[in-house]
Amino acid sequence: MKLLRHGPAGAEKPALLDADGKVRDLSGIVADIAGEALSDAALARIASIDPASLPEVTPGRIGPCVAGTRKFICVGLNYVDHARETGKTPPEEPILFMKATSAIIGPNDEVEIPRTSVKADWEVELGIVIGKRAKYVGEDKALDHVAGYCVVNDVSERAFQSERGGQWTKGKSHDTFGPIGPWLVTRDEIPDPQNLALWLDVDGVRRQTGTTANMIFGVRYLVSYISQFMTLEPGDIIATGTPPGVGMGIKPEPVYLKAGQVMTLGIDGLGSQRQQTIEARD
Amino acid sequence: MKLLRHGPAGAEKPALLDADGKVRDLSGIVADIAGEALSDAALARIASIDPASLPEVTPGRIGPCVAGTRKFICVGLNYVDHARETGKTPPEEPILFMKATSAIIGPNDEVEIPRTSVKADWEVELGIVIGKRAKYVGEDKALDHVAGYCVVNDVSERAFQSERGGQWTKGKSHDTFGPIGPWLVTRDEIPDPQNLALWLDVDGVRRQTGTTANMIFGVRYLVSYISQFMTLEPGDIIATGTPPGVGMGIKPEPVYLKAGQVMTLGIDGLGSQRQQTIEARD
Repeated sequence: MKLLRHGPAGAEKPALLDADGKVRDLSGIVADIAGEALSDAALARIASIDPASLPEVTPGRIGPCVAGTRKFICVGLNYVDHARETGKTPPEEPILFMKATSAIIGPNDEVEIPRTSVKADWEVELGIVIGKRAKYVGEDKALDHVAGYCVVNDVSERAFQSERGGQWTKGKSHDTFGPIGPWLVTRDEIPDPQNLALWLDVDGVRRQTGTTANMIFGVRYLVSYISQFMTLEPGDIIATGTPPGVGMGIKPEPVYLKAGQVMTLGIDGLGSQRQQTIEARD
Repeated sequence: MKLLRHGPAGAEKPALLDADGKVRDLSGIVADIAGEALSDAALARIASIDPASLPEVTPGRIGPCVAGTRKFICVGLNYVDHARETGKTPPEEPILFMKATSAIIGPNDEVEIPRTSVKADWEVELGIVIGKRAKYVGEDKALDHVAGYCVVNDVSERAFQSERGGQWTKGKSHDTFGPIGPWLVTRDEIPDPQNLALWLDVDGVRRQTGTTANMIFGVRYLVSYISQFMTLEPGDIIATGTPPGVGMGIKPEPVYLKAGQVMTLGIDGLGSQRQQTIEARD
């Protein structure tokens, strides 16, 4: 199933995308794509409904594909070739950092370039959406805690991230730096999350091309690993790292974002995003 | 005013502590100590009520003093003498990192020692609770965005923090690593947040003694600074760093927590906390 949320920011309604690409209203079935609605039982209940029996809606804006996210956890340098382009040694265990949940936006919303930013960058990533509480979970059970997957653009300001005091969260948390969606694709539709192509263009120029087959730490491992350090809750998102091709890795000179550009990005089976960049709002 | 939340975890009710130390029910006035209830207007409305007109309640458990926290932002090495005890140079600008909001507990709840933990440590800190959205706020206006203050124990696992891949969040985010409260003390009661004594005992032995006068970056500066990188929202918490005396700084050998110990800690005017340490739960 492909679940989505549509409507004005902060007032989105739940829906699903049917096999014909029509958007069907779920607001009579679940309050939101959040919390308990992400459990296996709730997802099975939705799956049991004939989509044709649900009202068709014409969405305006598409919102973030999940609500109620309390943790937006990111994995750093999780593709061997991306680690190399940044000049770093591939990590021996996952590097974790947090992105502010206030950075979350819809997949096609505008992305702000922060004031004083000179190194704004892009990162297409496979996002994992947690469906069931996970604490000290083994790899063998890890996928039981995953509701599904989505596209994430882990927008980053490299100077804020690495030249302003040492912890990455500072460069990852500006408003709009976390487009997610368009859909939360339930895990039954993605039998092998380690074999998905990812891509990202800036102004029509292909910048990132990758496959989740090149992840250093895969989905099962990451869910299990993170659950040793903190408890994952329904609606939490794990952004699993980015393949090569970020702006800071471009030779001979890095290339960074400025206002007035367009990023488009996508992942096999998970849909695509499109963001125009703008000057930061107040 | 001293605002608090009491009752079972996840079902706390709002209340205030009156001048005689009696707890008065606020559940007829505000839904929770969260969101819009943290605005100046809402706090003024509560302050205008005669506490004697509110039902007296006998609280069992005291919960976290604020709900709906979406960001738990921590400042690292923000006391010159604490920076020294960890062997680090005082930072030139604030070091920021995130603590998972799932770590938040009440002030007297049990603190878990994670499985495989060997370096669990304590950190008494002044917590700032945001009352009004803050983005690109100047220092002169920063306090307008503060609802009040509370005691925070920024419980930390030093091996997870520094020996497991480089970003601190991993050692800061275990369940129960964020006791907050007992009270949210509104900012009118704390005219000078840079002149508060802090202390922490472990098993009755005084371990931390400090004053917020020794902060490198004060409350006004921190709110303004953080708002340049991310938008602060009502209910967000900033833990402003810890004074000297953490376990990792004890000579000749560091001292760390194990299950079966008791931490007590407090800050002038903000009340005190007491946590028993236990083995991690599933």
